[in-house]
Amino acid sequence: MHRCLRASLNHTFVRSHWHRKLVPRGAIRGKASNAANTVPQPELMLEYANDAYGGVIVDTKGLPSDVHHFKAALRDSLQAWQQDGKRGIWLKVPLLLATHVPPAVELGFRPHHAEPEYIMLVNWVGSGVSTIPPNASHQVGIGACVINEHRQILMVQEKNGPLKGKGVWKIPTGLVDAGEDIHTAAEREVQEETGIRTTFDSVLAVRQAHGFGAGKSDLFVMVGLIPEPGQSKVTPCESELEACKWMPLEEYADQPFQRGVALYDKIRERCIAYADGRYRGWKAEKLEGRGFDRSRQDLLLYGDIDQAKL
Amino acid sequence: MHRCLRASLNHTFVRSHWHRKLVPRGAIRGKASNAANTVPQPELMLEYANDAYGGVIVDTKGLPSDVHHFKAALRDSLQAWQQDGKRGIWLKVPLLLATHVPPAVELGFRPHHAEPEYIMLVNWVGSGVSTIPPNASHQVGIGACVINEHRQILMVQEKNGPLKGKGVWKIPTGLVDAGEDIHTAAEREVQEETGIRTTFDSVLAVRQAHGFGAGKSDLFVMVGLIPEPGQSKVTPCESELEACKWMPLEEYADQPFQRGVALYDKIRERCIAYADGRYRGWKAEKLEGRGFDRSRQDLLLYGDIDQAKL
Repeated sequence: MHRCLRASLNHTFVRSHWHRKLVPRGAIRGKASNAANTVPQPELMLEYANDAYGGVIVDTKGLPSDVHHFKAALRDSLQAWQQDGKRGIWLKVPLLLATHVPPAVELGFRPHHAEPEYIMLVNWVGSGVSTIPPNASHQVGIGACVINEHRQILMVQEKNGPLKGKGVWKIPTGLVDAGEDIHTAAEREVQEETGIRTTFDSVLAVRQAHGFGAGKSDLFVMVGLIPEPGQSKVTPCESELEACKWMPLEEYADQPFQRGVALYDKIRERCIAYADGRYRGWKAEKLEGRGFDRSRQDLLLYGDIDQAKL
Repeated sequence: MHRCLRASLNHTFVRSHWHRKLVPRGAIRGKASNAANTVPQPELMLEYANDAYGGVIVDTKGLPSDVHHFKAALRDSLQAWQQDGKRGIWLKVPLLLATHVPPAVELGFRPHHAEPEYIMLVNWVGSGVSTIPPNASHQVGIGACVINEHRQILMVQEKNGPLKGKGVWKIPTGLVDAGEDIHTAAEREVQEETGIRTTFDSVLAVRQAHGFGAGKSDLFVMVGLIPEPGQSKVTPCESELEACKWMPLEEYADQPFQRGVALYDKIRERCIAYADGRYRGWKAEKLEGRGFDRSRQDLLLYGDIDQAKL
């Protein structure tokens, strides 16, 4: 029952929780002037904003630099927020105030996520089970099926990692950055690794796997790319590749590596069918989307509707 | 140039870096006995394992609990690792040792990611630009297009978040957990929100959007689900929904909410075509896959090959 609430919050939470309605800056040394607060305020109170889910976002810029002052204010604030029926308390600790992490943990805060320049802590003071959404759960990678006019596929040998020194030929792969479009990431990776400029053509398949890194999951998007005219000479990325080359499609189909593994067989089938014009994957198109408070261009991957059946 | 290396490491890194070859436990108070170390060892040295990328994984269990002892050992260890040509140093600090975060930050460590029970810090001591892969970059959500035998679609009104009180009817949505299959997440969300048990049928489209949470991206997978026989009575999740109901497809098509927004128009087109049997999305199938050191069942989303063109 509680799970369904949490799951629902997840998807909309991130769209709105940074919207701030800060209490006046003077509040930290006096009484919080937020009219919505219904209980007497303590003498020391951290500046904060209310979020859309009954929670509180502590103002990072207003954090006292002195760790003892900080701890006292955080303790008093927590008490006031709890009395006021608040739920999730978000505390973003910048790296320069790393000293503030241990006292916050002592007061019940737990890490939610972290980036190089800060640690985000959170404390559920509401009643019932926490509805705080989880951190980012997936990494997203691409695999590139690049076919040239001679019915050859672009293949690489990696210099680092588990395939190092094994002489295995594979398609170029790489990770999609946060904030990067999938089709753009595929074009970028192919050019970085092999020097070949391509144009995105089709999404061929998507693979989801689990148990990566800290219990995260992985989405691997197989895309078909077409080399730009005149892009035939490969230039392997020195730091990354032993070699790269165009390989006849028949030779690719006969590669022993991962042969007989159902997943890879199915993916390879699609790559070959795509090269032969027998498999039309999905388009990738940037379209006008809409968040709750802003317009934006989103990427949509989708297939054609069968118009014959209209 | 460096970017291509980083990007390549990303995708394989997570498969191997937890493989540990620990130095003997006595090493922390004496000399590290790892034969691969080529420089004289300091008196204090943290226990560690080498990773597959020339880096070091500090043994969390072997961390001194005393913060001053820890800081001295970390300083000495860093010096030794640097002299030994190591690159990325990974330090997982459990919550119980949160006091160790500030001294590690002082010594150049930066947050990489965090989970409720620990903070992962990393320090690039190698030459050149860091090739340390980023943290998980995406959240993954699902949107459920559930069509019944009366050509009605399952719709909900949310009780929380930005749509609260707006009377907007929308399809059920939710987040996929780390470790959860996309098609399973869709079935789960629909049942949690509306009580309707369904069977996954088809992936209709995938939307990627940016700028969520801490600069993360979002993948939203539209799936078509079929209600199990006899599943007609809706039971809205009390904590999450104002209401849910079966809505005639024509009424859904006329919903003003997000009408005229290219992205949502395209998605809605696909839902309606799917309901009418004019749009066949992608299958989702669990298939035998293979990691570099283990076999596993992965999820593959893929379309049919046009056999007529064989």
